[in-house]
Amino acid sequence: MLLRVRTAVAQLVAGLGAGAGGQPPAEPGGDEGSPADASFCRPAFLQLTAEELRRADDHAGRAVQSPRDGRRRLPWSTGYAEVINAGKSQHNEDQACCEVVFVERRPSPRGRLPSREGSGELDRGRKGFYFHYWALFDGHAGSGAAVMASKRLHLHICEQLRDLVDILQDPSPPPICLPHDVTAGPAEPSRVPLAEDNGEVPNDAVPRFHLEKAVSHESLVIGAIENAFKHMDDQIERERASQHLSGGCCALAAVYLLGKFYVANAGDSRAIIIRNGEIIPMSREFTPETERQRLQFLAFLRPELLGKEFTHLEFPRRIQPKELGKKMLYRDQNMNGWAYKKIEEDDLKFPLIYGEGKKARVMATIGVTRGLGDHDLKVFSSNIHIKPFLSCFPEVRVYDLTQYEHCPDDVLVLGTDGLWDVTNDKEVASVVMEVLTSYEPNDPCRYTMVAQELVVRSRGVLKERGWRLANDKLGSGDDISVFVIPLGGPGNYT
Amino acid sequence: MLLRVRTAVAQLVAGLGAGAGGQPPAEPGGDEGSPADASFCRPAFLQLTAEELRRADDHAGRAVQSPRDGRRRLPWSTGYAEVINAGKSQHNEDQACCEVVFVERRPSPRGRLPSREGSGELDRGRKGFYFHYWALFDGHAGSGAAVMASKRLHLHICEQLRDLVDILQDPSPPPICLPHDVTAGPAEPSRVPLAEDNGEVPNDAVPRFHLEKAVSHESLVIGAIENAFKHMDDQIERERASQHLSGGCCALAAVYLLGKFYVANAGDSRAIIIRNGEIIPMSREFTPETERQRLQFLAFLRPELLGKEFTHLEFPRRIQPKELGKKMLYRDQNMNGWAYKKIEEDDLKFPLIYGEGKKARVMATIGVTRGLGDHDLKVFSSNIHIKPFLSCFPEVRVYDLTQYEHCPDDVLVLGTDGLWDVTNDKEVASVVMEVLTSYEPNDPCRYTMVAQELVVRSRGVLKERGWRLANDKLGSGDDISVFVIPLGGPGNYT
Repeated sequence: MLLRVRTAVAQLVAGLGAGAGGQPPAEPGGDEGSPADASFCRPAFLQLTAEELRRADDHAGRAVQSPRDGRRRLPWSTGYAEVINAGKSQHNEDQACCEVVFVERRPSPRGRLPSREGSGELDRGRKGFYFHYWALFDGHAGSGAAVMASKRLHLHICEQLRDLVDILQDPSPPPICLPHDVTAGPAEPSRVPLAEDNGEVPNDAVPRFHLEKAVSHESLVIGAIENAFKHMDDQIERERASQHLSGGCCALAAVYLLGKFYVANAGDSRAIIIRNGEIIPMSREFTPETERQRLQFLAFLRPELLGKEFTHLEFPRRIQPKELGKKMLYRDQNMNGWAYKKIEEDDLKFPLIYGEGKKARVMATIGVTRGLGDHDLKVFSSNIHIKPFLSCFPEVRVYDLTQYEHCPDDVLVLGTDGLWDVTNDKEVASVVMEVLTSYEPNDPCRYTMVAQELVVRSRGVLKERGWRLANDKLGSGDDISVFVIPLGGPGNYT
Repeated sequence: MLLRVRTAVAQLVAGLGAGAGGQPPAEPGGDEGSPADASFCRPAFLQLTAEELRRADDHAGRAVQSPRDGRRRLPWSTGYAEVINAGKSQHNEDQACCEVVFVERRPSPRGRLPSREGSGELDRGRKGFYFHYWALFDGHAGSGAAVMASKRLHLHICEQLRDLVDILQDPSPPPICLPHDVTAGPAEPSRVPLAEDNGEVPNDAVPRFHLEKAVSHESLVIGAIENAFKHMDDQIERERASQHLSGGCCALAAVYLLGKFYVANAGDSRAIIIRNGEIIPMSREFTPETERQRLQFLAFLRPELLGKEFTHLEFPRRIQPKELGKKMLYRDQNMNGWAYKKIEEDDLKFPLIYGEGKKARVMATIGVTRGLGDHDLKVFSSNIHIKPFLSCFPEVRVYDLTQYEHCPDDVLVLGTDGLWDVTNDKEVASVVMEVLTSYEPNDPCRYTMVAQELVVRSRGVLKERGWRLANDKLGSGDDISVFVIPLGGPGNYT
């Protein structure tokens, strides 16, 4: 993602401006809380050498990066590829993460304190489960938030799941209420007590309150991921000063846990499953247009957030002072259609939501409405904060892998908007099928080849008039990052 | 719709309580503003005699009412049927309306004032268009709002459309901005000026404001219908004291205009199209469960609306004081999943949204979250108003009749929740197909037969243990009203 107001300009100079190289990035790594969190880097799993890093950072060449043959392979033979933008920002503001994470049941508060990294002595006989994790972060206005989120979000998810280790592995319905200390309880509790152990006796004095809503295991995982995003956002807020964190990022994360995929999206990245040639959307985008009514509703209820500069009403174009008294089309937080209203003084303010498609903006500033960070983002040369209008909560969609027998050509594709801006779902699906057909089903590099081809086709090739697609249309001048995750095939799931 | 807290009780006494007859209803009729607006009646198009009215009002017999053969036929041979509830309220709180409405272009403000009823002298040569209109209103806590809405909503829609008479019939894009007086302009304006006539010159001093969002004709009709609902609600608010209007109502309206159906729904009635055996949903229900996040968001931003009695958090069941300090599942306005939180004092308040399915309630009071009226509705024995949480705005869905060649068996079905509570979409579609097959395609009574059959099958028959369906399950004890509108067939469209 980018502050789209820059896009048009960036595309004009695509491949011409910015020059090669830029600053050599700082080393990645860094433990939680260390200043390195917010510094520039590429995903650790790429294992780039210093020379490779310089190439990856070259706006002129825009070399596609993938995990190299002979180095560590990603879980499930996942394919990954990325390319830097054509000059819109100094570095690639996309970040990625792919991990297998062990969720250990929280030990007794009376025993050892939990160690987030895990420790050798505890490894044997630990009670818990693994989840697989892939995530893309599309930064804007600086890479700090994206870099930190790429190193921490999975740990927050892990942390949220620790309370659920026993519950998720118990086939009986999750307990509605837990005793005081069960989630930080004795070292070896036999099992998590059920609701009926907790005062839910049939002779309850208030029988009409006895009704219980059924809550599924799945919805606990969804809640855990939602709250993990919130905690991630809080951490960025807390540490943004000490870590010199700037900017914000969209976040798209896929979690594979106990047979199901949970795809969580906050922003304008996108995930689709391609199964037997069919496209199954696994996310939707959160933009000023798709979230217009939520934003207008908030502005209507909290007009002070608009700082007397903006109106919560939407108009199809800016109104000029000389048009006062005329009738203009508008819509408010309650409307999907348009109607005419007489133009009043207040309507001359700038609309909260303005622009169309990729040019739509909240308060003339930002083109996405969900994500992490942006705590200091303000309207240009004003003291009006944007953050209250942004949500850090993802929408989580679930895909049950056990409900269908998947073949090696079935994949989950995650991509930042650099991909989807120029390549639609159908085109992505056809590239996937075309490339996979030309490799043996058991060739572990085939998913990387797909990811590379998707990036190359969306970037295009450098011609006299900038980066061009095969049809001579403008290629994406944005950072592009893609995961291609196989859903089936022999021996992929470890 | 009903205040569902009563439903369970009503169903227990179905066919047993309440007794036959009740008060003979007041005469329907009555012009706008007259006190008769809020008095009980049945839809005028039924043309019931006094004796028939008494039968229609009999909770014990629950006779199905339809337009009689030999009386005025509804437009397009529309089928309609209704039945009173099994005793939950004195009268049938559903209302219905079916009209063909002429929308006359607003005359010159310098000439005659517009007459809402139209006048003979103006009839010839009037400029305007017709729309067809069908609507169901499902009242609760009194029939006043439903009765008034059934007599007025189409007039509000007409009023909103009057500004659009020229615009909708002009194939060029609607103007973004109108001059001061075009909607109440000269008697014979040549045409509505386009945006470029209004200062939108290419050399505009602020070129970035020159971008215009395209607005479709369709979205103007949607906006007109949305605002008509709002004006209807405002009228009920204004006149509720003088007219002795009580209660509120769900509203489901279908407008056929210039080749398209606009189906507007505010509440828990439902519309589906059955086309060539396929079901196309034309509405969704607005209930505490489907609108949970909107309501929680409002309560979170305006906690004073909860009057210190309610919490905006949702819990799967009521919390008991002795559970303080334990952990309980909850979700807030940002979450779709569930997570555990430590129970605090504030969580002991009653949840804003509580209950499941048909038993879900806002502040323990009302089971629908959109509709008209309810301006005086308060939480039982408190001073907490419910209205701020209710929306009078419908969701409008559009169906383009010209995009498909319809056969005489293709229909749009509108029904109040009395129908859908016991008969699902698929069952309705199969009744439609079954009944239509047994009548000639050109038999004008076939749609009435469908409507009657749908009502009879949802009401069931009176047995020893109340009204029972064919499968011996409990029939609907609620008022049931159904329109069956043919989408095709020779000579139906007049």
